[in-house]
Amino acid sequence: MSEAIAFVGVGRMGANMARRLNEKGFTIAAVYDVYTESAEKLARELRCKAAASLAEVTASAGIIITVVTDDAAMRGIFGITQPGKTDDPTAPTTVDSLLIGAAGKLFINCATVTPVVHVEVETAAAGAGAATLEACMASSITQARQGTLYLMCAGQKAAYDRALPVLEIMAGNLRYIGPTGSAARVKALVNMVMNINTAGLAEGLGLGAALGLDLTMLREVFSQTGAASQVLKTDGEDMQNRDHACFFSASHAAKDSGIALELARDAGLDLPLALATKAQYDKLTDLGLGELDKSGIAELTFPGRGPIRLA
Amino acid sequence: MSEAIAFVGVGRMGANMARRLNEKGFTIAAVYDVYTESAEKLARELRCKAAASLAEVTASAGIIITVVTDDAAMRGIFGITQPGKTDDPTAPTTVDSLLIGAAGKLFINCATVTPVVHVEVETAAAGAGAATLEACMASSITQARQGTLYLMCAGQKAAYDRALPVLEIMAGNLRYIGPTGSAARVKALVNMVMNINTAGLAEGLGLGAALGLDLTMLREVFSQTGAASQVLKTDGEDMQNRDHACFFSASHAAKDSGIALELARDAGLDLPLALATKAQYDKLTDLGLGELDKSGIAELTFPGRGPIRLA
Repeated sequence: MSEAIAFVGVGRMGANMARRLNEKGFTIAAVYDVYTESAEKLARELRCKAAASLAEVTASAGIIITVVTDDAAMRGIFGITQPGKTDDPTAPTTVDSLLIGAAGKLFINCATVTPVVHVEVETAAAGAGAATLEACMASSITQARQGTLYLMCAGQKAAYDRALPVLEIMAGNLRYIGPTGSAARVKALVNMVMNINTAGLAEGLGLGAALGLDLTMLREVFSQTGAASQVLKTDGEDMQNRDHACFFSASHAAKDSGIALELARDAGLDLPLALATKAQYDKLTDLGLGELDKSGIAELTFPGRGPIRLA
Repeated sequence: MSEAIAFVGVGRMGANMARRLNEKGFTIAAVYDVYTESAEKLARELRCKAAASLAEVTASAGIIITVVTDDAAMRGIFGITQPGKTDDPTAPTTVDSLLIGAAGKLFINCATVTPVVHVEVETAAAGAGAATLEACMASSITQARQGTLYLMCAGQKAAYDRALPVLEIMAGNLRYIGPTGSAARVKALVNMVMNINTAGLAEGLGLGAALGLDLTMLREVFSQTGAASQVLKTDGEDMQNRDHACFFSASHAAKDSGIALELARDAGLDLPLALATKAQYDKLTDLGLGELDKSGIAELTFPGRGPIRLA
């Protein structure tokens, strides 16, 4: 059996990954979340510790799996000062961090963040004698619970080999991509294209509704022609029925398209569809609907729909 | 066996549809094209007449299948004056048209045109004692040749029933949508969404190339995740290899997205992705690359690619 495991970030994804590993006999030693209630609730369910600090998380296990929301959260848990920010002289001298007492530990980082952040984290962890692995997920909550995640890993091969017994329980499809940062790049591209297809589908179904077409018929025709896509399967019916219960939130979609657009800007590429897609998801977020599922973008394209309330 | 058949418009699609029907024992009586060489060549191959006029096409057969390029061509072959255009008093008084001597004939119209044009054609044909059927195709050249087209039909049910023996030989998937104009609406939506997905895929692969990723790996990851789509299967490898031999041209893509955008404008809908996609295809056409396959849009998004010459 593998080393004991701890989790940082137990939202929809992280909690289900922890449940899966627990169910398969792995020792979940501790869980942690900035929303302490979430961590405490899951800790009761899994009969483990709700860690009071990041340092306590690291002390509790050999392998720490992180599933946080964005670049700032990733840098934050590893105590990395953001570039351009000067240290505040009035700040406490001891900052809580996963890298306190981290020698010999392995961090498996599952958040979708800017690729360079994975490199920063790897460098900082190496300075503390710890190893890291990127494990980007291209799947959703159900797959997390069932252990059928699509996992794209990147980093040192030794870190990958050490993580393998854990990864194999979480993943239905496991892929080693290359050096640190490369899995995040692939993930950013997957989500950029997925978001474009989602925004485009919302336009097609919205216009179909405006023309008075039977949307169930229209989705079936789409599925049999050049308009077919994975998001048609996952989001088409939800767009039609305004069922935007969240699997992958609109604000996450905006964030991920933004990561891809930054990579494009650095490469000097002009990507008008990715830009238009991000603008739509930003608009949805600005309307206060960022916590809708990404299918919620249909609220912007169907006739007669407007800002709706969250259930 | 069915009535004799004639074709108007024997480009890539029309010619292969004629070949298919001929091979299955139907009588192809005549073919016609504004490019007389194309018609003459096909007439020799199928041992039929290359009609010298549209009236001669109508005289030659009971069922006339039209596969023309756009709204203007559709109105032209049926002798319909475009709205807003006044008749030119110096024009010849007798204009060639498919509706000359058309009583009792059935026209099966396969072009992707603005929905209202199908209604205009149906009205004009009825005035000449003829019937019409929309038969919108959501497939490409190979399917035309093999008789496996995806055909969406609309119009009077009696016209559909009369056309059925012919349609069944041409189609792998046959669907009656509703009244005249409705199949063209569905087709416009299919192509609008397909074009958006194509333009988005070109951005994803282009950015992948800029980041130095292995594009074969990237396409495989796309195919297994939320980025998967039908156009990934049909166009992804071609984008990578710059193989833009034409199945569905970039200029056709621009035209079809334009039809959908007109419908959206009439419905008061704002569709930013469809707009961005049409702008990309227009740009490609303006660069003189409109005859590339729709996959050619990748020439606009890959680093270091620029306008290329047609083979």
